[in-house]
Amino acid sequence: MKLPFKNVALIGKHKSLDVAVPLLSLAAFLSARGLGVIVDSLTAEQLADCPYPSMSLEEMAKVTDLAIVIGGDGTLLNIARTFSPCHVPLIGVNQGRLGFLTDLTLENMLESIGAMLEGQYVTERRLLLSARVMREGQEVFSGLAFNEVVAHRSQISSMVEFEVRIDGEYLYNQRADGLIVSTPTGSTAYAMSAGGPILHPALDVLELVPICPHTLSNRPIVVNGSSVLEILMHRCSDTRVRLDSHTSFDMQVHDKIIVTRYSGHAHLLHPVGHSYYHTLREKLQWNQSL
Amino acid sequence: MKLPFKNVALIGKHKSLDVAVPLLSLAAFLSARGLGVIVDSLTAEQLADCPYPSMSLEEMAKVTDLAIVIGGDGTLLNIARTFSPCHVPLIGVNQGRLGFLTDLTLENMLESIGAMLEGQYVTERRLLLSARVMREGQEVFSGLAFNEVVAHRSQISSMVEFEVRIDGEYLYNQRADGLIVSTPTGSTAYAMSAGGPILHPALDVLELVPICPHTLSNRPIVVNGSSVLEILMHRCSDTRVRLDSHTSFDMQVHDKIIVTRYSGHAHLLHPVGHSYYHTLREKLQWNQSL
Amino acid sequence: MKLPFKNVALIGKHKSLDVAVPLLSLAAFLSARGLGVIVDSLTAEQLADCPYPSMSLEEMAKVTDLAIVIGGDGTLLNIARTFSPCHVPLIGVNQGRLGFLTDLTLENMLESIGAMLEGQYVTERRLLLSARVMREGQEVFSGLAFNEVVAHRSQISSMVEFEVRIDGEYLYNQRADGLIVSTPTGSTAYAMSAGGPILHPALDVLELVPICPHTLSNRPIVVNGSSVLEILMHRCSDTRVRLDSHTSFDMQVHDKIIVTRYSGHAHLLHPVGHSYYHTLREKLQWNQSL
Amino acid sequence: MKLPFKNVALIGKHKSLDVAVPLLSLAAFLSARGLGVIVDSLTAEQLADCPYPSMSLEEMAKVTDLAIVIGGDGTLLNIARTFSPCHVPLIGVNQGRLGFLTDLTLENMLESIGAMLEGQYVTERRLLLSARVMREGQEVFSGLAFNEVVAHRSQISSMVEFEVRIDGEYLYNQRADGLIVSTPTGSTAYAMSAGGPILHPALDVLELVPICPHTLSNRPIVVNGSSVLEILMHRCSDTRVRLDSHTSFDMQVHDKIIVTRYSGHAHLLHPVGHSYYHTLREKLQWNQSL
Repeated sequence: MKLPFKNVALIGKHKSLDVAVPLLSLAAFLSARGLGVIVDSLTAEQLADCPYPSMSLEEMAKVTDLAIVIGGDGTLLNIARTFSPCHVPLIGVNQGRLGFLTDLTLENMLESIGAMLEGQYVTERRLLLSARVMREGQEVFSGLAFNEVVAHRSQISSMVEFEVRIDGEYLYNQRADGLIVSTPTGSTAYAMSAGGPILHPALDVLELVPICPHTLSNRPIVVNGSSVLEILMHRCSDTRVRLDSHTSFDMQVHDKIIVTRYSGHAHLLHPVGHSYYHTLREKLQWNQSL
Repeated sequence: MKLPFKNVALIGKHKSLDVAVPLLSLAAFLSARGLGVIVDSLTAEQLADCPYPSMSLEEMAKVTDLAIVIGGDGTLLNIARTFSPCHVPLIGVNQGRLGFLTDLTLENMLESIGAMLEGQYVTERRLLLSARVMREGQEVFSGLAFNEVVAHRSQISSMVEFEVRIDGEYLYNQRADGLIVSTPTGSTAYAMSAGGPILHPALDVLELVPICPHTLSNRPIVVNGSSVLEILMHRCSDTRVRLDSHTSFDMQVHDKIIVTRYSGHAHLLHPVGHSYYHTLREKLQWNQSL
Repeated sequence: MKLPFKNVALIGKHKSLDVAVPLLSLAAFLSARGLGVIVDSLTAEQLADCPYPSMSLEEMAKVTDLAIVIGGDGTLLNIARTFSPCHVPLIGVNQGRLGFLTDLTLENMLESIGAMLEGQYVTERRLLLSARVMREGQEVFSGLAFNEVVAHRSQISSMVEFEVRIDGEYLYNQRADGLIVSTPTGSTAYAMSAGGPILHPALDVLELVPICPHTLSNRPIVVNGSSVLEILMHRCSDTRVRLDSHTSFDMQVHDKIIVTRYSGHAHLLHPVGHSYYHTLREKLQWNQSL
Repeated sequence: MKLPFKNVALIGKHKSLDVAVPLLSLAAFLSARGLGVIVDSLTAEQLADCPYPSMSLEEMAKVTDLAIVIGGDGTLLNIARTFSPCHVPLIGVNQGRLGFLTDLTLENMLESIGAMLEGQYVTERRLLLSARVMREGQEVFSGLAFNEVVAHRSQISSMVEFEVRIDGEYLYNQRADGLIVSTPTGSTAYAMSAGGPILHPALDVLELVPICPHTLSNRPIVVNGSSVLEILMHRCSDTRVRLDSHTSFDMQVHDKIIVTRYSGHAHLLHPVGHSYYHTLREKLQWNQSL
C-alpha cells in the first residue's frame, strides 16, 4: 500500500482531558501503519507523557501532509486557518455531538481513518475569507476567517453605522449592531443566529447578514465569492472587527475593512458516503416537527 | 451605423390603456431608425389603429432579435419565458414605479434605447427554471419559470408534506404550506415575502424557501444552479405546482416535481451604468431607517 | 368524598384504533368511582362493544360537567369549540407526544385524573375567537376558533389584498397570502409557522400575523383581547376564511370578516404542578442548541 | 379659562441648535397664557439669553405639572424616566421626522398645545420597567427603562449564556448575544430590530426577545406586565445590563438581574384624534409594497 500521506499532525481540543486516550490510540494506530505522527505542543502538554514529537501549529503546518483534529467544530475551525495556507487537508473527529466539520465519531475513528488512509475518502474544498483593516492607506490588521468576519460595535451604547461597497459599487449605509460576512461554512454558525440562509458548502458565494438592522426591509444578501467587500465604519468610536470569534481588532473612525475570498482553500476529507444534508438534518433537528 | 438588431418586438402591459401613446412613440422612433417593428397581437388590439404588423408572442419570438416591454416586472416576466428559448434579449420600460426588471422610465425611454441601439448597453444573463411533473414515470406537465416554482396546498384545510431530494440525495421531509424554488431573479419576489435572502442576479444558484414550515429550525437553503431538485408530495389530495404566479397544475398523490435550471437563459439589456444595487435600495427603501 | 364532577364525557381521537384500550380503562376507572360516563358517538363506533351510553358532541356538552379527551391537540381543539359554550372544563390526555393542550400521558392518566377528581387540579382559562362573515349587512357565516381565524386566498394565482380595522380604526392595507388572527393558544400553532411570537396563554390579547406579506417592514402585532377586528377583502375573487383548520367558508368580493373574543372561555384542567414553560421547552426543543 | 396645568417644564434636544427658536416661541406662548415656564438647565445653556428660570431635570420634575419636549423620541425617552416617578405628563414635539412618542410637529405645535391646554387632549398611560442587579443578596445597581432592559455580552469574543425565570418558574437557558426585555413602547425600537412583534402601547405586557439566539426554535415571548423576570448570567466574565441605550452597568459572574414593571407609569398627552396606527403606518412605511 502506497499512502498519499506521510506525516500526520494530531491536534486535540484545548484544555480537554478526555482527548488524551483517543488521541494516543489514534497516534499508535497511525504509527503502526508507518506514518510519522506529530502532536501539537499545547495538546502534548495535556498528555502525561507524550512519546511523539510535538510542535507549534505553525511549524506542523509546514511539515505535515494531513491534520487530524479531535474535538469540536471550534477546534477544527482554528486549525483550518493555520493549515489551509500550507495546503494540508483536514479530518475532524468529534468528541461528543456530531459537528458540521467534525463528522467522524470516536467510535468509528480508527476504522474510518484506516479506510481513508487507503484512499477511500472524498475531498471537500471550502473557501476562507481574508480580512484587512486599512487606516490612512496603510494596512493595520489582517487575518483569515473560516466562518465569518464580523464588524460590530464594541460599546453597546454607541450606534454603529457602516457603509458597504461591493466591487467598488455602493450597496448601502446601515445602522445596526453589526454586519456579518460569512462563508458557506459559517452560514450554519453565527450568520444563522442572525437570520442568514444556509449556503451549500461547495458554493463559491458569500453572504452579508446584518445584526439587528434598523432598516426593517433589510435582508441577507448572497454575492459572488470573488466579490471585494469594503466596510467603512461611520460614527464608530467603538467598533471592532472579529474573525471566527477568535481574533479581534479595535478600529478607529474612518478605518476600512476589506474582505475578500482567501486565495487558498481549506480541504476537508470525509469518509466515502459522507452526506452534508444528513449532518444538516441532525444538527438542526429537522426530523422533528411541532 | 450597423445595428446588431433588425426586428424588434414591442409588447405592452396587458389591458393597460396608458401603454398606447408611449408604445406608438417608441415604434415610430425605431421605425425611423430603419428597424422592423412588430407589435404583440394582444397589445395591438388595445391600440385603436396599429400601423405595424402584429403577431402572437410565440411567433414574434421566432422572427425578432430584440424585445422591448412597456409595463411592469410582471409583464417582462411573462415575455421572458417565451422569448428566452429563442435567445431574444429583452429591454424593460416601467410605466410607473421602477421595477427590478424594468429599469428604463417612460421619460428616458427614447434616449436610453437610442444609445442602446448604438451598442451602449450591458447584457445580463439570468437563469430560468424548468419544472416537470412526473406521474408513474410519465411527464404530465412541464413549463418554465423565471421567478420561482412553488409547490403548495390548494385546499388550505389539508396538510402538505413534501419530501425533497437534491441530486438524488435526501434533504428533508417538510410539513408546510408549500415550498418555493426560486431563481436569483425571483429572490426579490415571492421568496422574499416567505423569508428568503436576496441572491445577486448573476449567481448560478437556486434557493429553497419553505412557506410557513412546521419545523421551526428550518431555514432557506441556497444550492448550486446545476442541482436537480425532486419534490415528492405526500398526503397530497390537494396540491398544486405553480410557475411565476402564471401557470399552475393540480397534482395527484405520488406525483413528483422535478426542477432544474433551464438550458437557456434570459438576456436582459440595460443602459451603461445600470446598477443592480441602486435598484435594490430604491425598491426596498433602504434609504430610510426607523 | 364529594366530587365536583358527576357526568364525564369521553372523547377519543377520530379514526384512531389505539384509543380503545385506554379509553375503556379510563371509563371503568371513572365508573368505579361512581361517575356517569358518556362516550362520544364517533368514538363509540370505533369500540367493538361499548358498554356506556353514547351521544353526539353537541348533546354531551349539555349533560356533562367534565370532558376528557384522549388524542392530540387537534382532537382537544375540536372538542373545545363545542364544550366551551356550555362551560364544560376539559382534560387532555396525549396518545403519544406531549401536546400543548394534552398534557397527561397514557401512563400517568389514571393516577393524574384520580387526583384531579379529588380536587387537585389547576384551572386555566383560555379565550376563543368568534368570527362572522358579513355580506351586504347580513351575516352569512359564523363560527368559533380556539387557535386562529385565517383569511387567505384559495386560488394561489390570485392576489389577496385585505384592509384591516381595529376598533373601527384603520390599521393597514396588506397584500399577502393571508392574515392570521390568533389567540394565545394558537400562538404556538399556525401563527408561529408564519413568524408570530409566543403569547402566554393567560394573556387577554390577540395577535395579527400576516402570511408572506409583500410589505417587508410588516410585523406581527399584538392587540387587546377586547379588540373588534374587521378584515375586508379587496380583489378577492377567491378568498376563504378558515377556523382552526377545521371549518372554512368561501367569500365573495366586499365580504367583511369580523373577529372578536368569544364571550365564553375554554377551561382546561391540569394536574397540580403543571408548567406551561416546561411544555414550551419540550415542544420547541429548547434544551438543545447548535 | 381655568387650566389644569400651572408650571410647564420645557426641554430641548441636547446639543441641537435648531431647538432655540421654537422653544423660545413656545415659552412665550405659554407665558402669555399665564403659565409658569421653566427651562431645563442644559437646554438653557444652549440659548444665548434665556429669560426663563432654569433647573435640572430632577428639580423640574418636582415643581412642574407638565413637561414639553422638543426633539426626537430619544429625548422624550430620557425625560420620561425622570418625570414619570413624579407623575408629570409629557407632550412630545418632533423637530423633524414624526416620532412614535413625539407626535406634534413644529408647524402645528402652538395650535395643538393651545388646544391641549384647554383640555382637548387624550392621555395615554404607558408602563416602564424597573431593573435591579443583585450581587450576593445586595442590590448593586438599579434604574428605570421606558423602552427596554438589555442583558448582553460586552466582549463579543465571550459567549453569553443566561438563565431566565418568570415568576420564579424556570423558562430557559439561552446562549445568545443577549436578551431584550421590552415594554410595548420599546417594541418598535431595538426589540423590533431583533425580531420582536409590535405590542399595542396600551397593553400591560412585556416581551422577551433574544438577540441572535443559538437555539433556532427560540421565539419572542409575550408575558404579563406583572411578571417578575430574573435573568442569571452564566459564563459571564463580560456581561452588561443596559437601560434604554442610556445607562449601563457591568456585571460579574452570578449577578442576577430582576426586571419588573415600575410601579408608576409614563403619561403621554396627545391631541384629540391622535392615532397610534397612523404613526405605525408612517414610521414603518406600510403605505408602500414591493
